[in-house]
Amino acid sequence: MVVETSQSFAGQDFDHRLVLWAMRLVGNPRISIRLWNGDEFPVTSDSPVACMEFRDRGAVLALIRSPSLGFGGCYSKGRIEVHGDFLAFANEITAAVTRKHNSGYYGPKLRSLLYALRPNTTVRSKHNVHHHYDLGNDFYKLWLDKRMVYTCAYFDTAEATLAEAQVAKMDHVCRKLKLQPGMKVIDAGCGWGALAMHMAEKYGVDVIAYNNSSEQVAYAREEATERRLDRKVTFVEDDYRTINQRCDAFVSIGMLEHVGLANYKLLGALINRCLKPSGLGLIHSIGRSFPNKTDAWIVKHIFPGGHVPSLGEMMTVFEPYRFSIIDVENLRPHYARTCAAWLQNFESVAGDIEKTYGKPFVRMWRLYLAGSSAGFQSGTLQLYQVLFTPYGNNKVPWTREYQYLENAGGN
Amino acid sequence: MVVETSQSFAGQDFDHRLVLWAMRLVGNPRISIRLWNGDEFPVTSDSPVACMEFRDRGAVLALIRSPSLGFGGCYSKGRIEVHGDFLAFANEITAAVTRKHNSGYYGPKLRSLLYALRPNTTVRSKHNVHHHYDLGNDFYKLWLDKRMVYTCAYFDTAEATLAEAQVAKMDHVCRKLKLQPGMKVIDAGCGWGALAMHMAEKYGVDVIAYNNSSEQVAYAREEATERRLDRKVTFVEDDYRTINQRCDAFVSIGMLEHVGLANYKLLGALINRCLKPSGLGLIHSIGRSFPNKTDAWIVKHIFPGGHVPSLGEMMTVFEPYRFSIIDVENLRPHYARTCAAWLQNFESVAGDIEKTYGKPFVRMWRLYLAGSSAGFQSGTLQLYQVLFTPYGNNKVPWTREYQYLENAGGN
Repeated sequence: MVVETSQSFAGQDFDHRLVLWAMRLVGNPRISIRLWNGDEFPVTSDSPVACMEFRDRGAVLALIRSPSLGFGGCYSKGRIEVHGDFLAFANEITAAVTRKHNSGYYGPKLRSLLYALRPNTTVRSKHNVHHHYDLGNDFYKLWLDKRMVYTCAYFDTAEATLAEAQVAKMDHVCRKLKLQPGMKVIDAGCGWGALAMHMAEKYGVDVIAYNNSSEQVAYAREEATERRLDRKVTFVEDDYRTINQRCDAFVSIGMLEHVGLANYKLLGALINRCLKPSGLGLIHSIGRSFPNKTDAWIVKHIFPGGHVPSLGEMMTVFEPYRFSIIDVENLRPHYARTCAAWLQNFESVAGDIEKTYGKPFVRMWRLYLAGSSAGFQSGTLQLYQVLFTPYGNNKVPWTREYQYLENAGGN
Repeated sequence: MVVETSQSFAGQDFDHRLVLWAMRLVGNPRISIRLWNGDEFPVTSDSPVACMEFRDRGAVLALIRSPSLGFGGCYSKGRIEVHGDFLAFANEITAAVTRKHNSGYYGPKLRSLLYALRPNTTVRSKHNVHHHYDLGNDFYKLWLDKRMVYTCAYFDTAEATLAEAQVAKMDHVCRKLKLQPGMKVIDAGCGWGALAMHMAEKYGVDVIAYNNSSEQVAYAREEATERRLDRKVTFVEDDYRTINQRCDAFVSIGMLEHVGLANYKLLGALINRCLKPSGLGLIHSIGRSFPNKTDAWIVKHIFPGGHVPSLGEMMTVFEPYRFSIIDVENLRPHYARTCAAWLQNFESVAGDIEKTYGKPFVRMWRLYLAGSSAGFQSGTLQLYQVLFTPYGNNKVPWTREYQYLENAGGN
């Protein structure tokens, strides 16, 4: 009996130490731990934000092997459970990891470059896009705003709803581009077509919108016909690399993340061919404050082929073709709020989604949405809108005041 | 006689061809040529913008050897004369050179990197700054605005004078930095102290301003005492590398051009040490739309040690320390107008300046001011204002609208 008790104590002690070791790897977050045997203890002396439950010892080992893949995999399968506010938990973990890994520049930069060695071919891009965007329009309809905008919103007032903020974002982009009726606009990576249709409807421009997701293009075409915009907006189901029209404005919202570093110069060449000498272009993309590899779990399960660039890396789209960068705006806090709004919508219909897609899918998406919000909240992720124009174009706005005038642009 | 005539024809023909060859090297500008023997002919069939006179054959050869050094040297010495509007001439030449050299990316980028191998030491920086800024306050007083601001102005209205636009620039910068009374601000490379005093006077902040030009600091201190700002503004005559105070805001207007690429990381480290976690920083610098070596004549005669970075190159100040870039604004057209205003002022007192500094000096400065204006007009040069904050700071402005509200900030 005495021997057995001491063995049990030793085992308990070992598990506690193992978990605390795992927690050191992620920067000692202010959370409490619950083990498979019911043991509960805090990681730090601060009051815990939430409780992380390990349902088996293997989950702890998986976390140690790879914090990102280990946590993501085990949480999706329910081998790790989180008790309390999941977004608060995600924010705390992300902040802790950030505190821990706050040194080093060349290491992450090298990893970012090495990662770029596997370029996205047209075939691979099609596959990557299919993986995420062809999950079914019905799935996204459940938790996106009614216009189906799946990129960072712009909360121009404190009270703005998600739907209002998505319209505000589209107007913000259109104002920056100084759209005028009759202009021809290329929209590269148009999602469900919300921006393309908004530009045509409100600003009177003609849009050619590209997307290689069959599901999204089918939805967009139907919507355009219904809104009688099908003569102003052409949706092309093809890779961005096939774009070959001349345009007065080039816009790409949330596509660069899928392009991959190795193809930035190719994208720049394409814009250089398409954009008229006095045209304006805008690329809106998730970014980083320093070069780094994209999170392993995100690449494996959410965005295969994805790369989140630093602003310096983004310049490899523009500098080889001498584009003049007119204006860069960072909307980081807006994306934290956007993702949090999506998560809230998602949770309100999680039960329905679970019936169709299963429990692991719901848990994976919860982690993805909360983790993204936490990424923007912590500063791991940034959101850059880069406005640019061909070299030497002097027909550029004199100041940016026009972006903030009431009713600027539009009909 | 017949032989002589044909010899003379052959000689004339040779000189014409030599000049036209030189003109091809600079992209065949729409100008006419006058030779030392009185011959006059146009370079292209377009109507000429101005007339360039070569006073001897050696000047043509100097131009062929090195268009930048050759023209600069010969124009300064009067071996090349320009008849007509000098700024229009400079604009045309710059545009022509730009049209010609519009290809290649890795070559200029490599030259930019190689150029950076000769870093500016503290001693060399002192020498470089002395070369340009210690020409005498009286000299600059003759043609700058009354506050002695020697950086890009911000013409927020079409009618703004240079003096008004310099105040508007300072306010634009102060608004971006969200200055509040009592804040401590570091001003790195403060010139004659106009911004430092403006910030203290209008925004109630305490400023420590650095500059290693003795002449400028002496002027700034006297001015501060006269305006009773000497308790709010401390002028330190020292290299930026000695900055070691903590601050709520860090601002540097027109210093980065002198720092040199090799020291960007050092500058970033310095800001990283000084700026509080919730502080804002702004770097205002001449830039380029792609990496390239700085013009040979400018480096030799105007700004030794100077380097004009691309936005990507500027990121090596920020990315190693994970600063979050909040906002980048390009004021390129404003600097073309600023330099043109300086040139106009300069021409109105050129006679006086010539008496003190001599004819070659006046011609050199005319070329520098007109060439700079032309550089910004053509797109060879850009002007970036980069607003940034330490990693993870969430106390950032929600939108940029505050920058455009009447009477935002200030007392």
